[in-house]
Amino acid sequence: MTKIFFTPGPSQLYLTVAKHLEKGLIENVYSISHRGKQFEQIFAETTANLKKLLNIPEDYSIFFVSSGTECMERIIENCVEKYSFHFVNGAFSQRFYETAIELKKQPLEQKADLGSGFDFENVSIPLKTELICFVHNETSTGVMLNSKKIESFKKLFPETLIAVDCVSSMPYVDLNYKAVDLVFFSVQKLLGLPAGLGVLIVSPNALKKAESLSKRKINIGTYHNLLSLQKYASKNQTPETPSVMHIYLLEKVLEDMLKIGIKKIRNDTDKKAKLIYDFLDNDPYLSSFVKDEQFRSKTVIVAKMDQKTESLIKFLKERGIVVAGGYGALKDFQIRIANVPANSINNTKLLIKSLRLYTKQLKP
Amino acid sequence: MTKIFFTPGPSQLYLTVAKHLEKGLIENVYSISHRGKQFEQIFAETTANLKKLLNIPEDYSIFFVSSGTECMERIIENCVEKYSFHFVNGAFSQRFYETAIELKKQPLEQKADLGSGFDFENVSIPLKTELICFVHNETSTGVMLNSKKIESFKKLFPETLIAVDCVSSMPYVDLNYKAVDLVFFSVQKLLGLPAGLGVLIVSPNALKKAESLSKRKINIGTYHNLLSLQKYASKNQTPETPSVMHIYLLEKVLEDMLKIGIKKIRNDTDKKAKLIYDFLDNDPYLSSFVKDEQFRSKTVIVAKMDQKTESLIKFLKERGIVVAGGYGALKDFQIRIANVPANSINNTKLLIKSLRLYTKQLKP
Repeated sequence: MTKIFFTPGPSQLYLTVAKHLEKGLIENVYSISHRGKQFEQIFAETTANLKKLLNIPEDYSIFFVSSGTECMERIIENCVEKYSFHFVNGAFSQRFYETAIELKKQPLEQKADLGSGFDFENVSIPLKTELICFVHNETSTGVMLNSKKIESFKKLFPETLIAVDCVSSMPYVDLNYKAVDLVFFSVQKLLGLPAGLGVLIVSPNALKKAESLSKRKINIGTYHNLLSLQKYASKNQTPETPSVMHIYLLEKVLEDMLKIGIKKIRNDTDKKAKLIYDFLDNDPYLSSFVKDEQFRSKTVIVAKMDQKTESLIKFLKERGIVVAGGYGALKDFQIRIANVPANSINNTKLLIKSLRLYTKQLKP
Repeated sequence: MTKIFFTPGPSQLYLTVAKHLEKGLIENVYSISHRGKQFEQIFAETTANLKKLLNIPEDYSIFFVSSGTECMERIIENCVEKYSFHFVNGAFSQRFYETAIELKKQPLEQKADLGSGFDFENVSIPLKTELICFVHNETSTGVMLNSKKIESFKKLFPETLIAVDCVSSMPYVDLNYKAVDLVFFSVQKLLGLPAGLGVLIVSPNALKKAESLSKRKINIGTYHNLLSLQKYASKNQTPETPSVMHIYLLEKVLEDMLKIGIKKIRNDTDKKAKLIYDFLDNDPYLSSFVKDEQFRSKTVIVAKMDQKTESLIKFLKERGIVVAGGYGALKDFQIRIANVPANSINNTKLLIKSLRLYTKQLKP
């Protein structure tokens, strides 16, 4: 049976991935040297496509690592001597905070309840803070922060670096990169690639910070420290042998997305999210886990029930639809739905129809 | 034109990779959750296949990371407080040594000339050494160390951990794992997979060392420290979203290799290496860069000429044969030939025939 994956990572493969994967095989792309011209072209095209699609400033660097989780480690290692500040409202923002602890830094956290966002006006951040860390879209709870509010911190803290985890919101999120310094995402979410590649977008100021830590003999890591990544990226290469296959697939999928246009991709995402939330707001059994509309994620939608969702997940699976369970304490009473470009409006309607079919048969 | 890659990494894809890649696509393997049963089965099968093919003890752990280069970083981070000792005779053993410097350790090195091995009897290693690092096969120079000699260090230094880089010799190298603690390789060499996965084999003693460093508040890294990798591996999972595709392909290729048998794979490698060295020893223009027969690599064969090899590489390319250039100072006068299971004896004969054709037309 053909399956439709509404899981938030790995997600449904983008429609053209199979075709590109095969073309890469036929053209021997997976055996080429990562020190040769052909790879350098792939690297250059991929970063050019990213800059074009996302409107990233020319003087920002783009690095390829292996996961979003790795990005968290490299960011803290390279941009924090002691003090990072973290907005924590779920498993992934918690992971970012704990990364700083594991690296023997002295991070602070501002907590919010699961399913909630932050009241940014009432947060106090110490002036000595070197890096403020946001998770734009908390994959575990379906809370999306307002990117304009994230950007506004740059005015308040012009000397502080800003990191934004966009693992499950890129390329939906429309960022002003000049107001942020370290942005990262994984390719297995909205980009629809197989998992195995993390992308890190870095401002000149973030590179300067890594340089200053390095000069002061602070451990910033080895082959994947920002300076090593930058040295190789300036030649369109990576320090180690990378997954050429992933970078090649990313180049091709970005090309496809450029043809469609980022506006349409974002509009379609909004439309599909509205369909799902409208359904949840009117269904007697299923409802949105995130109550406050301003924090409802457009890309990872968490629905909750008063009863366990196990049989719902099974019901959908029998119809070829795969959704994810919840996360953390309430996981058994939730489902998580990824709203990614690979899933069409029609597929989204099919999902909603199946959800409705399930709750209709439930007894009050 | 169909190309045959004799490049030492990425190398020629193993014959069955295309088939497996496609099967994975059809079966939606690249969208499955890395926290689900299906992935856990893939993880369990892959590590079971590795243990079977390589005769790895049951109580050793197997971790999946993203490259051989990452393995070097994780090994030093997790198993060295201050003192590592490195045998350095080329770019990759040098990289291992420099990794320790970058991580602010106090490594020592024993150097040998490029193209040479070591006189192990005349080396003195301080007793305080925590980790001795070998590169079994120096991909940059075509020098392969005697694995029995590496193993013999365990008797001399029973309290010291032994790390062995087998990036370009696994699964050819027949190790007694009980005499070593940290062994790693990349999948894009002899295993014939696309690049993007590193495999780290770890002894119980190496895990204990990481635990002791961690208890003493020494920074051992975050998601990919050995304790975190072990915590997840014990559930057949990885800390981060891994490249499920790579692990799946590795499972399948190992299955194929188990059917052929490791003995035959090793014997064929020996046979093909002999064909190439016999040719080099008798050709008037091309000769083996490694003079001492005991150190001649069976898996990466470096040939040298008195003249530049650029036109030779071009000559081969026009015939659909891709070899690599040299490495370091002598690079323009060398070619590097990978002797991997994906290349048959007949393909090896074709390579030799083409090399002979080229040197025959050279004027004395």
